[in-house]
Amino acid sequence: MSQDIEKIIREINWDSKPINLYLPIAYTMESGGKRLRPMLADIAFEMFSGRGDTIKDAARAIEIFHNFTLLHDDLMDNSPTRRNRPTVHTRWNANTAILSGDAMLIKAYEFLGKTPSQYWEKLLPLFTKTALEVCEGQQFDMDFETIDDICIEDYFEMIRLKTAVLLACALKMGAILADASDDDQQTIYSLGIALGMAFQLKDDYLDTYGTTETLGKRVGDDILSYKKTFLLLTALHKADDSQKKRLVSAMSTKDITDEQKIKTVTLIYNELDIPQICEKVIDEYYIQANNLLEKISVPSESKEPLKTLINKLKIREK
Amino acid sequence: MSQDIEKIIREINWDSKPINLYLPIAYTMESGGKRLRPMLADIAFEMFSGRGDTIKDAARAIEIFHNFTLLHDDLMDNSPTRRNRPTVHTRWNANTAILSGDAMLIKAYEFLGKTPSQYWEKLLPLFTKTALEVCEGQQFDMDFETIDDICIEDYFEMIRLKTAVLLACALKMGAILADASDDDQQTIYSLGIALGMAFQLKDDYLDTYGTTETLGKRVGDDILSYKKTFLLLTALHKADDSQKKRLVSAMSTKDITDEQKIKTVTLIYNELDIPQICEKVIDEYYIQANNLLEKISVPSESKEPLKTLINKLKIREK
Repeated sequence: MSQDIEKIIREINWDSKPINLYLPIAYTMESGGKRLRPMLADIAFEMFSGRGDTIKDAARAIEIFHNFTLLHDDLMDNSPTRRNRPTVHTRWNANTAILSGDAMLIKAYEFLGKTPSQYWEKLLPLFTKTALEVCEGQQFDMDFETIDDICIEDYFEMIRLKTAVLLACALKMGAILADASDDDQQTIYSLGIALGMAFQLKDDYLDTYGTTETLGKRVGDDILSYKKTFLLLTALHKADDSQKKRLVSAMSTKDITDEQKIKTVTLIYNELDIPQICEKVIDEYYIQANNLLEKISVPSESKEPLKTLINKLKIREK
Repeated sequence: MSQDIEKIIREINWDSKPINLYLPIAYTMESGGKRLRPMLADIAFEMFSGRGDTIKDAARAIEIFHNFTLLHDDLMDNSPTRRNRPTVHTRWNANTAILSGDAMLIKAYEFLGKTPSQYWEKLLPLFTKTALEVCEGQQFDMDFETIDDICIEDYFEMIRLKTAVLLACALKMGAILADASDDDQQTIYSLGIALGMAFQLKDDYLDTYGTTETLGKRVGDDILSYKKTFLLLTALHKADDSQKKRLVSAMSTKDITDEQKIKTVTLIYNELDIPQICEKVIDEYYIQANNLLEKISVPSESKEPLKTLINKLKIREK
């Protein structure tokens, strides 16, 4: 089924009433994206020789949940666009974004409830725990905006919650539905955490060091919004007093253009070897993910699809 | 357990991090209210001789869900207060209301997941279906604000979804957890619908015909906000051309004080016998609820607590 992830997501029928509730959901779900989470669920399912199509509804549940978080996050961040289209609160309004998002969260549980019930005792607590963690991660992220002394450990914990646990959950759901052993379920969950950490750190990296052409969005948004990313926190940690002063001044001044601000901050990052440090940390997470993949008790040829995906994520430019 | 509903709600531990996520939830959950839904779940459970305390977590789930809907509805309606306290978006901000609400919805599922898993195949689809219906009802309610030709049937369907199904779900959950027969589960669900319809119609009635002293809030808010309640829709349906003109003019004018507006509209309602009609429809639903209670296959003394509660709701003045 691995080729058909987009198809199984698009097969979901949103043609219900009231249309003002379901149309914004259809709009959100059809807007594409990487479909990374359902892909991970499916890859894990196939790796452990899962049979039939029981993974379909779990994959749908997790993609609906992910898109629910984007919908509400975009509203909270007041983001005008997502994937080159107006966000739901922009195209409709804030109330529509709130209520359609709520319905998506419930729909995610509905699809989870379409999986064979003998798996619910494992799937439901995992999904619920993950969903709460994602909310907690989002709250920590919002809290960080107004806290000055975030340490890098806090940041790692935030991205673990906000991003990594959902990737790990997707992989583990695939493993559960394929009747993998408890050890393998645990190992693939840990692999998902490592992969998710690398994934988010790469996002931070690309926001400054990607190109507009490959990213499809402006480079430097995190700098302009003074976002406490791994890059900034590491730079602040490594900087001497004079560098720190220049960095804080460049980040917070309103006297220079956006382009000048991005350029100045990037130059300080470069002075401090931030891109190299960031690449190294990302690499370490990928090594960890691959080591965990080694430990999984299936023939190595079964591991190829996940290995390929990990490598694809590693070299991605967007 | 029936005396301890407030206690089992207050026993829920919200002392988690990040506090900016969980404190607004604790604030919402401690603010009281009738606790009607967990009470219904418990009464049904006891009526069917349910054993142990398996009902506790289902009752908590349903009360958390109900409070989640209030939290998000208050934000969408921009209501400044609820139960004489500032609403979450007023006391904190809109983003807090969105994200804490999301976490509450997930928490409701977490508590549902604490019930014995042999009941999940019945409880989960019921809860999920109900939760979606409540969202649909809220959307219809918002849609009605901008639609001029709402008929009374549309209104009944809206309040069935927005209010009645959750009361019905609470009763049915109690029945499921007490191993009631499928017939009795269905009957108590229908009873809950009738009770919920009566409950919402009484809310509409009291908003115009209650007193500030007993209600604890201003009388006439629905009139001032031109809300398409059963009272207004029935009045518009019954009015002749001249009465209709006076009614629409009184509802929409900005040239008179709030007090004058409430007084004028209420007088037209009185001319059209709206309070009597409303009382009659409410009574019919209560008769229906009591007839359904008769049909349930338990000894009549077991039915007393529900009978008492129905009667209490019937004569409530707030």
